[in-house]
Amino acid sequence: QNVTDQQIDLAVVAGDGIGTEVVEQGLRTLEAALAPSGTKVVTTEFDLGARRWHATGETLTDEDLERIRQHDAILLGAIGDPTVPSGVLERGLLLKLRFTLDHYVNLRPSKLFEGVTSPLADPGEVDFVVVREGTEGPYTGNGGALRVGTPAEIATEVSVNTAFGVERVVRDAFARAAKRERKHLTLVHKHNVLVHAGHLWRRTVEAVNAEFPEVTTDYLHVDAATIFLTTNPSRFDVIVTDNLFGDILTDQAAAITGGIGLAASANINPDRTAPSMFEPVHGSAPDIAGTGKADPTATILSVGLLLDHLGRADESAAVQAAVAADLADRATTSSVRTTAQIGADIAARVAG
Amino acid sequence: QNVTDQQIDLAVVAGDGIGTEVVEQGLRTLEAALAPSGTKVVTTEFDLGARRWHATGETLTDEDLERIRQHDAILLGAIGDPTVPSGVLERGLLLKLRFTLDHYVNLRPSKLFEGVTSPLADPGEVDFVVVREGTEGPYTGNGGALRVGTPAEIATEVSVNTAFGVERVVRDAFARAAKRERKHLTLVHKHNVLVHAGHLWRRTVEAVNAEFPEVTTDYLHVDAATIFLTTNPSRFDVIVTDNLFGDILTDQAAAITGGIGLAASANINPDRTAPSMFEPVHGSAPDIAGTGKADPTATILSVGLLLDHLGRADESAAVQAAVAADLADRATTSSVRTTAQIGADIAARVAG
Ligand SMILES: CC(C)[C@H](C(=O)O)[C@@H](O)C(=O)O
Ligand SMILES: CC(C)[C@H](C(=O)O)[C@@H](O)C(=O)O
Repeated sequence: QNVTDQQIDLAVVAGDGIGTEVVEQGLRTLEAALAPSGTKVVTTEFDLGARRWHATGETLTDEDLERIRQHDAILLGAIGDPTVPSGVLERGLLLKLRFTLDHYVNLRPSKLFEGVTSPLADPGEVDFVVVREGTEGPYTGNGGALRVGTPAEIATEVSVNTAFGVERVVRDAFARAAKRERKHLTLVHKHNVLVHAGHLWRRTVEAVNAEFPEVTTDYLHVDAATIFLTTNPSRFDVIVTDNLFGDILTDQAAAITGGIGLAASANINPDRTAPSMFEPVHGSAPDIAGTGKADPTATILSVGLLLDHLGRADESAAVQAAVAADLADRATTSSVRTTAQIGADIAARVAG
Repeated sequence: QNVTDQQIDLAVVAGDGIGTEVVEQGLRTLEAALAPSGTKVVTTEFDLGARRWHATGETLTDEDLERIRQHDAILLGAIGDPTVPSGVLERGLLLKLRFTLDHYVNLRPSKLFEGVTSPLADPGEVDFVVVREGTEGPYTGNGGALRVGTPAEIATEVSVNTAFGVERVVRDAFARAAKRERKHLTLVHKHNVLVHAGHLWRRTVEAVNAEFPEVTTDYLHVDAATIFLTTNPSRFDVIVTDNLFGDILTDQAAAITGGIGLAASANINPDRTAPSMFEPVHGSAPDIAGTGKADPTATILSVGLLLDHLGRADESAAVQAAVAADLADRATTSSVRTTAQIGADIAARVAG
């Protein structure tokens, strides 16, 4: 990767459904944020998703991957469409990107911004981040099925966990916790049932803690974690967990902090051997695609994470501040804005 | 099983922590409910859990199992203790009971009783039941670990799903949905990632639906389900899902309907080839064991499920009504009652 102050080469995968609409607004904010410094954003659009699959049967070719690798970062909208068999695009495109580009840190911040109402009666001050492992667990595609469609069918799904994979994401989570005010890390797993994987995670957290003695830790079973996310979400600072538990908890976390319209995520390759990928947590929402009802805020906040990852902390903070101001305004105005209007308003605030 | 009108033979596994305290109150209510009919409850206590393991190294022997099988039902308190390595009692005792006695329907009702406040700002009328598969999925103990404690460690957990196992629990869920007012069944899975298992579940729901044409169905990914449990829990009627997703969702469901102090469960063997088991969803809560702070309501509601399973619908309704009345009272009185006082009050209401 070659991020100069002059230019950012961005691979854009708008994808399916509302993907195009929200990505457009994300790019608008990105350009507004970088304009003052003179940095240009050069985008390459990749035609990936349902349209391409219907036309060619391809999800993500080696050549696509090779070209994507040449970029500084990836901005992704949403993947998945009801006209494509479930799993084809998710596994063949979205997860293939995460796995092949070694996005082992799937970062998902949850913050209850001022002006945003939570469905919880008393959420407290919610500001935590989930570090979801991104390249292992039940997401590997290991497993299979025998005698499909017969009464003797058996289907397995294998969660794969390695010391290599767990240690690197746990270390990343500790490093993030160490930089935060509360310096607290919660491991979420289910080690009383998934004993092999669970004990690996637990031992790894204990071992890596020695490198970060200033970080306090605790442990929650995943079922108990859903309780605390409901009754006391402000107790969390950094959560580290596996790929599937992270998927589940971050949707619940989004639900209590304004909804998935606001939930940003970063698929990070911390070793920078390949570009990292930034995407909203939400899906392609085919039911509202094209209506202008999609909230681009999650994508815009993901652009904030992108800027931070590329070393543009000031611009990242500006995006975050613009979103915060926009959200605070929503609480006092009743106007319903389209996707493009919200994007324009936030971009205007960023431009200052 | 030999349930006469004269006698119910009950295996009692109080277990660890608060298990003893809540089971005592459950039995009290059971006896109060059955007294008018003259039915006697004959209990056999089984010394299982942390104490036994420390003393003998045993979790559940073949002989224990053989004796337990001779009963009409099992009442279980809670299993698990911090002095025992994680997984030993859960896998070796609790899950061994569920698996060996073929408790393939793990039934967990969620109802927001009048007088109970929910942490959700606007929960609506919550009254649904989760039919959690109990003998397959990631709970089978399949998987293992290699090179433990080395940098080359690998740990796997295998989710096992069979047409046999999925079909029988799905059919049970449909039958329950068909008997309810809304007649709606929601399948929760993650078939866009766990494609083999997910597609087996999906196809099975479609196929069994033909036997219950009056039941409407929909599907949610598990991550989306946690969102709806937060934003619109009243949308659910019957949920059918796998062992792990069911574990997670039912704790979240408990959190939004008064907490795990109120969450009942039944581990049912619908074929009645072995006794079914009734237990609160909560754990052994060692932090409050012996303090009298445990709420026995979840166990008492589990006794209600037990009565229903044994064909004592009237007595079951009486227990449910007594709990409802007790909960309604809690809203208007501020007195803090002990475990035993709550149990006595509910038993007195049942006795009429
Ligand atoms: C679309 C799906 C494969 C994906 C996931 O499960 O990771 C999504 O739910 C997410 O959280 O980014
Ligand atoms: C104690 C544990 C093994 C158990 C489970 O995971 O099933 C518990 O959480 C439950 O829900 O009954």
